[in-house]
Amino acid sequence: MKLVLKISGKFFDEENIENFISLRNTIKNIVNEGHRLAIVSGGGSTARKYIKIGRELGVNEAHLDLLGIWASRLNAYLLTFILSDLSYMKVPENLEEFIEKWESEKVVITGGFQPGQSTATVAALVSEAIAADYLILATNVDGVYDKDPRYNRDAKLLSKLNIETLKKILETSQSVKAGTYELLDPLAIKIIERSKIKVIVMNYKRLNKILDIIHGKDIGSIIEPM
Amino acid sequence: MKLVLKISGKFFDEENIENFISLRNTIKNIVNEGHRLAIVSGGGSTARKYIKIGRELGVNEAHLDLLGIWASRLNAYLLTFILSDLSYMKVPENLEEFIEKWESEKVVITGGFQPGQSTATVAALVSEAIAADYLILATNVDGVYDKDPRYNRDAKLLSKLNIETLKKILETSQSVKAGTYELLDPLAIKIIERSKIKVIVMNYKRLNKILDIIHGKDIGSIIEPM
Amino acid sequence: MKLVLKISGKFFDEENIENFISLRNTIKNIVNEGHRLAIVSGGGSTARKYIKIGRELGVNEAHLDLLGIWASRLNAYLLTFILSDLSYMKVPENLEEFIEKWESEKVVITGGFQPGQSTATVAALVSEAIAADYLILATNVDGVYDKDPRYNRDAKLLSKLNIETLKKILETSQSVKAGTYELLDPLAIKIIERSKIKVIVMNYKRLNKILDIIHGKDIGSIIEPM
Amino acid sequence: MKLVLKISGKFFDEENIENFISLRNTIKNIVNEGHRLAIVSGGGSTARKYIKIGRELGVNEAHLDLLGIWASRLNAYLLTFILSDLSYMKVPENLEEFIEKWESEKVVITGGFQPGQSTATVAALVSEAIAADYLILATNVDGVYDKDPRYNRDAKLLSKLNIETLKKILETSQSVKAGTYELLDPLAIKIIERSKIKVIVMNYKRLNKILDIIHGKDIGSIIEPM
Amino acid sequence: MKLVLKISGKFFDEENIENFISLRNTIKNIVNEGHRLAIVSGGGSTARKYIKIGRELGVNEAHLDLLGIWASRLNAYLLTFILSDLSYMKVPENLEEFIEKWESEKVVITGGFQPGQSTATVAALVSEAIAADYLILATNVDGVYDKDPRYNRDAKLLSKLNIETLKKILETSQSVKAGTYELLDPLAIKIIERSKIKVIVMNYKRLNKILDIIHGKDIGSIIEPM
Amino acid sequence: MKLVLKISGKFFDEENIENFISLRNTIKNIVNEGHRLAIVSGGGSTARKYIKIGRELGVNEAHLDLLGIWASRLNAYLLTFILSDLSYMKVPENLEEFIEKWESEKVVITGGFQPGQSTATVAALVSEAIAADYLILATNVDGVYDKDPRYNRDAKLLSKLNIETLKKILETSQSVKAGTYELLDPLAIKIIERSKIKVIVMNYKRLNKILDIIHGKDIGSIIEPM
Repeated sequence: MKLVLKISGKFFDEENIENFISLRNTIKNIVNEGHRLAIVSGGGSTARKYIKIGRELGVNEAHLDLLGIWASRLNAYLLTFILSDLSYMKVPENLEEFIEKWESEKVVITGGFQPGQSTATVAALVSEAIAADYLILATNVDGVYDKDPRYNRDAKLLSKLNIETLKKILETSQSVKAGTYELLDPLAIKIIERSKIKVIVMNYKRLNKILDIIHGKDIGSIIEPM
Repeated sequence: MKLVLKISGKFFDEENIENFISLRNTIKNIVNEGHRLAIVSGGGSTARKYIKIGRELGVNEAHLDLLGIWASRLNAYLLTFILSDLSYMKVPENLEEFIEKWESEKVVITGGFQPGQSTATVAALVSEAIAADYLILATNVDGVYDKDPRYNRDAKLLSKLNIETLKKILETSQSVKAGTYELLDPLAIKIIERSKIKVIVMNYKRLNKILDIIHGKDIGSIIEPM
Repeated sequence: MKLVLKISGKFFDEENIENFISLRNTIKNIVNEGHRLAIVSGGGSTARKYIKIGRELGVNEAHLDLLGIWASRLNAYLLTFILSDLSYMKVPENLEEFIEKWESEKVVITGGFQPGQSTATVAALVSEAIAADYLILATNVDGVYDKDPRYNRDAKLLSKLNIETLKKILETSQSVKAGTYELLDPLAIKIIERSKIKVIVMNYKRLNKILDIIHGKDIGSIIEPM
Repeated sequence: MKLVLKISGKFFDEENIENFISLRNTIKNIVNEGHRLAIVSGGGSTARKYIKIGRELGVNEAHLDLLGIWASRLNAYLLTFILSDLSYMKVPENLEEFIEKWESEKVVITGGFQPGQSTATVAALVSEAIAADYLILATNVDGVYDKDPRYNRDAKLLSKLNIETLKKILETSQSVKAGTYELLDPLAIKIIERSKIKVIVMNYKRLNKILDIIHGKDIGSIIEPM
Repeated sequence: MKLVLKISGKFFDEENIENFISLRNTIKNIVNEGHRLAIVSGGGSTARKYIKIGRELGVNEAHLDLLGIWASRLNAYLLTFILSDLSYMKVPENLEEFIEKWESEKVVITGGFQPGQSTATVAALVSEAIAADYLILATNVDGVYDKDPRYNRDAKLLSKLNIETLKKILETSQSVKAGTYELLDPLAIKIIERSKIKVIVMNYKRLNKILDIIHGKDIGSIIEPM
Repeated sequence: MKLVLKISGKFFDEENIENFISLRNTIKNIVNEGHRLAIVSGGGSTARKYIKIGRELGVNEAHLDLLGIWASRLNAYLLTFILSDLSYMKVPENLEEFIEKWESEKVVITGGFQPGQSTATVAALVSEAIAADYLILATNVDGVYDKDPRYNRDAKLLSKLNIETLKKILETSQSVKAGTYELLDPLAIKIIERSKIKVIVMNYKRLNKILDIIHGKDIGSIIEPM
């Protein structure tokens, strides 16, 4: 299988060594079983810190996004060095470079690519370019809920849904408070739809269960193309 | 002023030498008056030809987009060499490279940047990065109409409108037939909105009137941020 | 074996899907049999179209050649994506880059390298650099004839000849009309001679017979060094 | 004059907007007076945070240094975007790239270059390569003291000293506690000595006084070659 | 004027400091008078030394040429550093890179570009790309003679000749002993002819007379296009 | 095992074909036995020649070092082409590039990286980055002696010593005549110490005995970390 793993910036913010060790073990297992893997890391609090300073100093939106992108690349280098036996040792900076480095047969790890787009879009572009079997969004919730679980006690986790359903949930959720529940932005969705990419949403605390989740044996959501 | 000029792929399809000469003269004038200029060229029929062959052979969407991007870069090199006294002599391949080459004080000319996004989005990203005074969309119609002029005899050209109005017109137009009237895709709009970029839509046959259009003295549409 | 396959720009001009499928199958077979392969693609009508516009606008010879080179690279990207399981996913832009990418063990595909030289010369340089067993010129004729077959009904295909004989034929042929029968220009010949490269001329419609032609079992010409 | 300004990582750790504004104004003044400027930024707490995580996960020393280098480059990009009218818009990643970008006549801003060396060494290398008039070390103390001021109430600031004196002070200081007072490491000193670079140590809170300090009219230390 | 100066490898072999100083002064004068200049340096004895070792060890022709090219780049870096106030500080490695660096308005200095071609061809390609007014070949003879002056006491220096005459002289000369009098190889000639480049042959000991020679006031040969 | 082999510039100065053949055979054996290898070549007399000319012409120290670095890269290319079946075909120019190219699984060959540091430091940095089992210094003496063998008849070769002992010997030796016995400069030592790299000093005439020396069965010195 070819897998793309998008790791939320929150993973890095926790600075939790156990999480990193679990991630490393998971990736070793995936590679040892003969699968190929690309990883996209978010920017997290490092990105927010630099963007905040830049914004107070009048830096423009494109350049603020670049600060966030460079922060996500720093997270990507951290993963690269932690996985140095398995990873390609340079973080690609755009999709054409990613495509070239993917030739190396290594785990290729990127951060952001370009202003105006999220690292989720990067992960979707990467998934499309390599015809990934699954795009896995590892974040700090267990999957997709029918309602925003932060505001709804009775929110239910959906273990299977299709992309249309996801789009409706995201729209509702965003109407509550813009920007707070951004699993997938519209450009990422567009790419997922046009290339019929299968998506999994899961908790990064369960990374060791990725293969179980793919096989429907553990907690997480699988989003299927229409 | 800092201007970004997006030239429709149709301009290249016409293979009209007079149009090229007019473009060259216009750009010389703009530069001689002390303005700075970036140009983004579309892919046109060369892009469509290669994408068509690729699609028949099962090439994936990301790679098809890359064929279109390389075709637009070929158009960009054509402009680069036609303008060789004024232009930066390499076509940047992503926004970070564009930002770097813009330091040269020359006219910097690009094609597409990345799969999943139009050259209109490239032009919006470039406009944001350099804080352009105007993003000029030069195409084969005279401006923005209140209805799709191909189907509505009474369509009226709007000389001034705001971005909200444009979005409504584009939505209506696209509901007729997806993809046939794509002046600006949603990502381009998002960037234009967040950075409050002023946009002009005009006919590339009137390129010599750019400054007149900016000053409201010739036919074209000016779209203002909210 | 190490093979270099130079594909005439005419191959691309035909836009014949069957030819592309045949090429893909041939290359898969060659690779599966354990051979290594480099491909050089010509520029064809795309190159001529852009050069024509450029020339009418006074673009200089070096820049016109670069337009042709970028067109040949577009053809090379088309092949790259059609062969994406086997090919190196970036088109090298000069010999030093080719040499580096050849390390990847993939099929490496290039277009032109530099003004003032044909893609046949590129193919000869590539053959020399990797010590290719054969340089195969796939074009729209079946091989080398003793006279120009377009003007001589009794022209005979030569299945074996040496480089000296070829040089004489090319000189005669070129004296008829410069530039119309340019299989190999003088620089390509010089490199073929100094490194004693074996050359095959064959029809790209017979690409599936490459190995047969190498073994003398099908129609084509083998040119041997002295 | 040609100046190299090394800004301590502590400057970034303070996240003090006033300091950034003061830095920007200072640099604008320096440039407006016709001087040329290169800036080297330290890695600060961002570097330490990533190195700490990496170390706990067994990352090797070379890779840990690279994490610090990428953090310092993030700081360098922050300065680059804050100074976007004056700065070269790409952060060079090694001395050869710096030397090339310096051609641009802009303020060129770098972080670290290479494992095993401090950003002070980077600043010394840059000073040597451009034959800088002064290398200015902007840090959180007012200059060089005859004793470590943190442990010695009677430490006196030296407004002028020579490089031999500085070396003795650094040796004594380091004997107290290794790594706590590392203004200049031995490699930086070696380069400063061989190219007779004049060094100024000053407080980054007084950046607006740089030219006064150079002229001996404000608080800071000037270190002269022998 | 735009000038391309090809400096023979013999210039470097002499290790004559006076020659270097004279070259530096000449170039300063040319630049101060407002002309633009590109320089191409030969490989000389350093190239021959490395090629000789490589050949004895069975290195192939393409790689041997690359050794010569890297040696010529070392000569080019020597000139670059000697002229560091005027020169672009990176040696371009192919024509596309040269064209880009030429934007810098500096003196751009190259060595060889590609196997299978002389540095004279590099100089011709560069001359064509920038539309140079003159291509100046600075070597260890005073100009073009009607016969090979090493074997003919009565050889006469030709102060003006056309490219056809030069071709005939080169053919005769080469028939004496291949490779010993290679001012211009056939590919260089082809480029000179197609772009009607004016060529000057002169002694590098007279570099300070370049402008005089251009104006016909000093010893040297001017070769004019037909 | 992972080995880093630093080859003294003197190896190249001898221009001894037998030595090169022996080196090639040794490396083939090492690779065939499944070990991985990086090579760092010194600059030797080619470096000294160019530095000498540059110094007489007032070139600054950073640029002089770059001349030496480019000369060492020329030596590295010579080795690259001699070993073309085994080697990575591009010489990396800094540590980050080295780390990336090391992914190729080939023998990666470098010269110098940066002004202000020896190729011994380059070799130490490379050893640290790849966690080499041994850093082998191949030079024109048989190992480390207790005294400088050029001035002390009774100097004894030390087959085993620790890094502290080596430091004392180097200090004494350098006090005799600076710069004449520079096996390892202080920066190289610092890196060797912090990463506890095992070092071997041996004669390049015994390269075929590398594995024997590692196993203590032949003449050479092994330096162990503390």
